Amino acid sequence: MKQYTIASLTALLLVICVSLHAQVDTDVESFQVKAIYDEVLTHAECYEWLRGLTKDVGPRLSGSPGGAAGVEYMKQIMDTLGFDTVWLQECQVPHWSRGPKPEVARIVNSSLLGTQDLICTALGNSESSVSTGFSAPVIEVHSLDEVDERAAEVKGKIVFYNRPMDPKQLRTFYAYGGAVDQRGAGASRASKHGALGVLVRSMTTEIDDVPHTGGMWYDDGVEKIPALAIATSSAELLSEALGADPDLQIYMRSDAKMLSDKTSYNVIGQINGTETPENILLVGGHLDSWDLGEGAHDDGAGCVHSLEVIRTMKALGLSPKNTLRCVLFANEENGLQGGRKYAEVSNAKGEFHMAALESDAGGFTPRGFSLDGDRSVFERKLSKVREFNDILQPYGLSISVGGSGADISPLKSQKGLLIGFRPDSQRYFDYHHTAEDRFEAVNKRELELGAAAMTSLIYLIDKYGL
Amino acid sequence: MKQYTIASLTALLLVICVSLHAQVDTDVESFQVKAIYDEVLTHAECYEWLRGLTKDVGPRLSGSPGGAAGVEYMKQIMDTLGFDTVWLQECQVPHWSRGPKPEVARIVNSSLLGTQDLICTALGNSESSVSTGFSAPVIEVHSLDEVDERAAEVKGKIVFYNRPMDPKQLRTFYAYGGAVDQRGAGASRASKHGALGVLVRSMTTEIDDVPHTGGMWYDDGVEKIPALAIATSSAELLSEALGADPDLQIYMRSDAKMLSDKTSYNVIGQINGTETPENILLVGGHLDSWDLGEGAHDDGAGCVHSLEVIRTMKALGLSPKNTLRCVLFANEENGLQGGRKYAEVSNAKGEFHMAALESDAGGFTPRGFSLDGDRSVFERKLSKVREFNDILQPYGLSISVGGSGADISPLKSQKGLLIGFRPDSQRYFDYHHTAEDRFEAVNKRELELGAAAMTSLIYLIDKYGL
Repeated sequence: MKQYTIASLTALLLVICVSLHAQVDTDVESFQVKAIYDEVLTHAECYEWLRGLTKDVGPRLSGSPGGAAGVEYMKQIMDTLGFDTVWLQECQVPHWSRGPKPEVARIVNSSLLGTQDLICTALGNSESSVSTGFSAPVIEVHSLDEVDERAAEVKGKIVFYNRPMDPKQLRTFYAYGGAVDQRGAGASRASKHGALGVLVRSMTTEIDDVPHTGGMWYDDGVEKIPALAIATSSAELLSEALGADPDLQIYMRSDAKMLSDKTSYNVIGQINGTETPENILLVGGHLDSWDLGEGAHDDGAGCVHSLEVIRTMKALGLSPKNTLRCVLFANEENGLQGGRKYAEVSNAKGEFHMAALESDAGGFTPRGFSLDGDRSVFERKLSKVREFNDILQPYGLSISVGGSGADISPLKSQKGLLIGFRPDSQRYFDYHHTAEDRFEAVNKRELELGAAAMTSLIYLIDKYGL
Repeated sequence: MKQYTIASLTALLLVICVSLHAQVDTDVESFQVKAIYDEVLTHAECYEWLRGLTKDVGPRLSGSPGGAAGVEYMKQIMDTLGFDTVWLQECQVPHWSRGPKPEVARIVNSSLLGTQDLICTALGNSESSVSTGFSAPVIEVHSLDEVDERAAEVKGKIVFYNRPMDPKQLRTFYAYGGAVDQRGAGASRASKHGALGVLVRSMTTEIDDVPHTGGMWYDDGVEKIPALAIATSSAELLSEALGADPDLQIYMRSDAKMLSDKTSYNVIGQINGTETPENILLVGGHLDSWDLGEGAHDDGAGCVHSLEVIRTMKALGLSPKNTLRCVLFANEENGLQGGRKYAEVSNAKGEFHMAALESDAGGFTPRGFSLDGDRSVFERKLSKVREFNDILQPYGLSISVGGSGADISPLKSQKGLLIGFRPDSQRYFDYHHTAEDRFEAVNKRELELGAAAMTSLIYLIDKYGL
């Protein structure tokens, strides 16, 4: 009797071990992944959802009426998708406004150009100039360090950050990462040394007339000087004009300001897991956008990708063993309050996100996924995902190690796997944070393939665990 | 003395063998390929060349004034690139014209729609209707075989080919290949059974209002009935209308006709090889386009890609060991007379093309190369190119087996390697053979990356042989 019990326990343990380390059946799963792609490429709704989000709702800056409309629009779609629960998670978000009058950055006394308006846009979170604007000489720099080194020259001037994104970087996000400190921290660094304002070369490798906004932050205690991005064509022009007239002055004006915080929401839908509902698989993007353009690639695409994952799983009758949660985060662009609130509530509840997958790199042809996680568990999870390589490779999807997504990064302490969806990045910085980030910039098939790639990975992780 | 001679010969043979089968130095060549990419991504001229070819020259249908202007424009650029020789190779090309008046395909008596114009365009090489047009009932079919099977129903009718391109095909060219027989051979098959005209659903997976032209051919002896493509939106509409009214009639008119042949030219530039000039490496695209749009992706991109290969090799001081020849072919779209003439002359001269690389799949982000060749030598050449895998893979380039390019395919009998450049294909059939194939549809970085990929492969093949 005792031996029988031990044998039973051994058998049970064996079953558990096999189920925990189930061998990936590449043939069977390739067939299933093909079915996922077929479903998405013939019945996807993500493109039409994106049309509504961009054309009917439009820009969705945190705290703006458009931001609130985006929440309502996406919740209404979620309500049709057969989730077990759909809810709004309240959070307080900053409410920045560009102000009523257009920003101005004007060369006023160039021997080459005479008076010349530069193409500009206020940086997000930046504060206004005096209402009449002001004129000052300009110092061109190429790094934050250069501002420190030339501190004596900075006082009373406008600091012009003109280090370009490196076109030689094959991955444009690396080039962005190599230049964006000028936008984020440039005003504080310049203000510390008595500058009156900053102009920042737009974050793109192209030379064009499109100014790119984006988040900036003031360090505690610094004077909040105005900060504008200028189009790369204007940056080239200004640099040339300064070469001819080092004492040239710029007239600068901005009405931008931070208003009081507003209430916004993460929009969340959940399908309860059938076997291990305590393990959560998150798929998401961020619902807020900048006030320019329509927030199509950034990040309407990520939002509709995430909803399409749910629609497709439902359409194929793939009931997840683990809880599948779709989260459309608030306020990624200028505060990350949505992502922070989500992690705070999740941690307080003692939840465990086995994996979180964010799409926030645009709706382009998929190239793979970038994996991140707590060092103590990462290697094992990485090698588990690499077991899917032979299934994903025919779709042009590769697994790499790197960042995941801003909104899901606060979940890292739960020691699950964090995953960033990685589409082709070549066109992203033509549109990023500009008036050009419109529905028309998104290709239907490319968008759909992103949703199919994400659904496939979520399906495989749900089935085989991590 | 005799032994010394044998030793010398052995050593010489060893040197020859090593040079014939030189080991690919992946570290060194990765460095060189990075230099190629850096050069192209910072100094490429291909995008501006394409702007001139599309905006100043415009559409370049064989035999048209635009076709002649394209030859002159590209020759003038070639003359600046430091070739050893630049020449025009004469060939006779068909001269098809859409005619003075717009094509018409009109539903005349639908109970659903009343009178309704369909969005249409004459297929290339097709002949006119009677000048007043005609009305006839319509039979909808989904294959050439169905026309044979329903031969009794076809006589006196307009045959409407409505089999869509399969959106489930990940590679859109496969979906195109699966549907394009309707466009190319549909009129002949229908005419054989007494049809009066054909309408063909446009070759795209999207449902939109953009009609796609493209080549069609009449079999010897058939009545040359008119042939129009209709936009996919119109195809859906017509199919629905036929469901309600099987006896519905279409009024159809076309002025299209084939005129007498014209003289055109392949535009060719050559850098003589420094070591084995008898081995030719060809890089090319086709210079003609359809009369709609500006021939930007098809195939202005391939032409400027090819020129950029030369500019980059020159800029980096990479003198080819083998003869490097750039060929911009005439008349790919509706006759292939340029490719045929080129092979005919080359064969007559006893030339050997060690490799020929054609770019004719658009200016999108590169995904790799597709290899083809005479069976007797192909496996060896394929395995040689696969030795470059570790160098090319970081750039997202993979080597596959498949087709190469229409213009270079007549060179197959020379038993060299034929290579097709393979960019991402997801957006190609949004533009292919339409008025939308304009300069604005081409992204600068994507175009440049294609040129960098092609230059890298040409450099490696030149250095290591095949």
